[in-house]
Amino acid sequence: MDSYLIQVNGHGDHAPVLDVHLKTNGNSISLGKVKGRKPRWAVRASEMSKKTFNPVRAIVDSMKVEPNPKKAMISLSLGDPTVFGNLPTNDEVTLAVKEVLDSGRYNGYAPAVGYQSCREAVAAYYSCPEAPLEAQDVILTSAIELALAVLANPGQNILVPRPGFSLYKTLALSMGIEVKLYNLLPEKAWEIDLKHLESLVDEKTACLIVNNPSNPCGSVFSKSHLQKILAAASRQCVPILADEIYGDMVFADCKYEPIATLSTNVPILSCGGLAKRWLVPGWRMGWILIHDRRDIFGNEIRDGLVRLSQRILGPCTIVQGALERILHRTPPEFYHNTLSILKSNADLCYTALSAIPGLQPVRPAGAMYLMVEIEMEHFPEFENDVEFTERLISEQSVFCLPATCFEYPNFFRVVITVPEEMILEACSRIQEFCEMHYQGAEGTQDLECDK
Amino acid sequence: MDSYLIQVNGHGDHAPVLDVHLKTNGNSISLGKVKGRKPRWAVRASEMSKKTFNPVRAIVDSMKVEPNPKKAMISLSLGDPTVFGNLPTNDEVTLAVKEVLDSGRYNGYAPAVGYQSCREAVAAYYSCPEAPLEAQDVILTSAIELALAVLANPGQNILVPRPGFSLYKTLALSMGIEVKLYNLLPEKAWEIDLKHLESLVDEKTACLIVNNPSNPCGSVFSKSHLQKILAAASRQCVPILADEIYGDMVFADCKYEPIATLSTNVPILSCGGLAKRWLVPGWRMGWILIHDRRDIFGNEIRDGLVRLSQRILGPCTIVQGALERILHRTPPEFYHNTLSILKSNADLCYTALSAIPGLQPVRPAGAMYLMVEIEMEHFPEFENDVEFTERLISEQSVFCLPATCFEYPNFFRVVITVPEEMILEACSRIQEFCEMHYQGAEGTQDLECDK
Repeated sequence: MDSYLIQVNGHGDHAPVLDVHLKTNGNSISLGKVKGRKPRWAVRASEMSKKTFNPVRAIVDSMKVEPNPKKAMISLSLGDPTVFGNLPTNDEVTLAVKEVLDSGRYNGYAPAVGYQSCREAVAAYYSCPEAPLEAQDVILTSAIELALAVLANPGQNILVPRPGFSLYKTLALSMGIEVKLYNLLPEKAWEIDLKHLESLVDEKTACLIVNNPSNPCGSVFSKSHLQKILAAASRQCVPILADEIYGDMVFADCKYEPIATLSTNVPILSCGGLAKRWLVPGWRMGWILIHDRRDIFGNEIRDGLVRLSQRILGPCTIVQGALERILHRTPPEFYHNTLSILKSNADLCYTALSAIPGLQPVRPAGAMYLMVEIEMEHFPEFENDVEFTERLISEQSVFCLPATCFEYPNFFRVVITVPEEMILEACSRIQEFCEMHYQGAEGTQDLECDK
Repeated sequence: MDSYLIQVNGHGDHAPVLDVHLKTNGNSISLGKVKGRKPRWAVRASEMSKKTFNPVRAIVDSMKVEPNPKKAMISLSLGDPTVFGNLPTNDEVTLAVKEVLDSGRYNGYAPAVGYQSCREAVAAYYSCPEAPLEAQDVILTSAIELALAVLANPGQNILVPRPGFSLYKTLALSMGIEVKLYNLLPEKAWEIDLKHLESLVDEKTACLIVNNPSNPCGSVFSKSHLQKILAAASRQCVPILADEIYGDMVFADCKYEPIATLSTNVPILSCGGLAKRWLVPGWRMGWILIHDRRDIFGNEIRDGLVRLSQRILGPCTIVQGALERILHRTPPEFYHNTLSILKSNADLCYTALSAIPGLQPVRPAGAMYLMVEIEMEHFPEFENDVEFTERLISEQSVFCLPATCFEYPNFFRVVITVPEEMILEACSRIQEFCEMHYQGAEGTQDLECDK
């Protein structure tokens, strides 16, 4: 028996699509339950697991080089401020969790979206007249994953910065969402190429990811640039997923503006958390702030966030229990101290790398990173940034992440949370390395003559 | 321009399927990028968010009844042992976390699958000669979600116990996985109806969920019944997702057998965690133990688990850091004490409810629950278990979860972690309620005469 299913879909301004599915059961085998089949073991991993892919892991794992045994390894690659012990969290933060443990009151299940009192505390902390927040606008969660999951369907696309944090792509591809990369401009302090960005928008665009301050660039957008981004989003009617996990982590000569404070109509999901500013990334305490003053997200996106939060691990309750105290009692000096160390490291690093032939660092204004351009024409020995950084390991035992990890070849990323003396030592080794391999205009010609 | 795409799929022993997609672009509007479109705001929540659905929430939220203002509310509905403070976790558990906080060494990122030392600690704790485990067999994660995500694709199906924990269905439906319910038999202490189970298997069956000890039944499978389940899985070549979060939580007259210790060939992902046995469900510390002695999962499922763990929140590092100490130092008396309280509450509750006309409790052997059958023919006033439990709230201020929440009408679930005096008071109110509404054989006739 043959079966025919014909479905006609045609809604809105999409072109009508006619789907015809024909099932032809030649040998009277049906797709449903089959009696008398001979079972055999064939356990396959799901498609989603196969589509889940971390490009950084893939690139780094392919860099199978041994460091120089005569030099101690210095890693400037890990975006984790805790690894060297020079940037501990504040005592108030750990005390807050200990108090919670002693109370015994935060061991049970929290609501999927987080304790009400914590949602209130976060709302109060981040609320301001230009972008007011209430408890119901806060979801305590794995923020970027949940925000993407509620905004985009498989087959849609999202706009992602290049260079940009690789997790956006990992999450999107695992969900069957297409990634479209828009350019950041190093010569304009990594501002967005808005013309390029707008050219990428189509009717399948589910959201625009804006990461400010930026990983890997360490850049901080000005108020006027953020206004231009909002104008573009507004023209294109594309909601913004604002990754603001480095929010407030900007150096003294610069100001951080949460993008929602500048928006009058663009709906925004702002993703933040304790990870970076409070220097506890392993605690996994993140949140989504819902900004939707024109009611464009409406109940649909809010309900979707609540429903989706039921299927994933919420943040650990002892950290949630401590959250209000962490937000209120962490002394201002702690934040200032962190930033002055980062600023000082950034300056040291920028100055040292600027003096090296063939390298062009871009001065950061916040976050914990700095990007360095490799003038590849002066390093003809190396095919690309991956080879450059590979050889930097094998010769100088210094590990920087090649920016191919961020879809941006011919740069590398330096993490500036490492102790000052290690930064200086690393920069001096990078100098030795570059001087060894640098070919000036003349040298390049020589090399070409050798061919 | 009209475009036609014709695709023919026919692989393996599936029947051939002919898919025909016709795109007819009447007004030269294409589905791709459209220049000159007029953007308008239309932000929709994703399909996944719409498919994510917690049946318990839906049923409970629909029970809009006020408790009797003259009686204090007693809730026997929440599967959270911490709510009344009568079952605190052990001091060693909180001390272990405080020690970790003081060390400052566990604030950074852990590997996506968990710290190596923690994986080793869990492997050592659960390893036994019949089912040996190494660190690589342990993934610290949101266990059930990850196990389902690696085993099943959209369009496949999973076998789920009825009555059973609602999260299986919530997760499966959100991922587009079909749920097939197999029956548990209350008259056989909630053993699986294996004939029914096997009749449900087809070539799209991705896994069999076995929940032992059981939520909501409080039942514990015997060794011989587990062997029969394994034999069925082996005959059908279906891997097992063993939800063993209540593992070891069985009363003294009974023995808990981890299903993997009885298997020679069936590949098993066993899901466990600190939540129940250590009485800290909010800490969200779960794990998957991979048992695969015949290499049927092979590298594919292992790699899939590792990749998928990169996309979701791993457990909080301060709990991970404390894990080894928690496993080793929690005194045996703590476990014994918890179980003796649960056993005593279970006995009290079972005895009290057994004496009530129209109710048939099923004696539990472990976990934290007890199921009670409502002989609906004796309560003609009530349509079903939802109405019965609703009226129990409005008249007696006692809240039990109707087992419709577990796909099992005409039962309700009682949580036995509440303090003894509350259980006794609740049982006495349930008795009053039932005596008020019970209609014996004669009464039923009377009622029918009234019609």
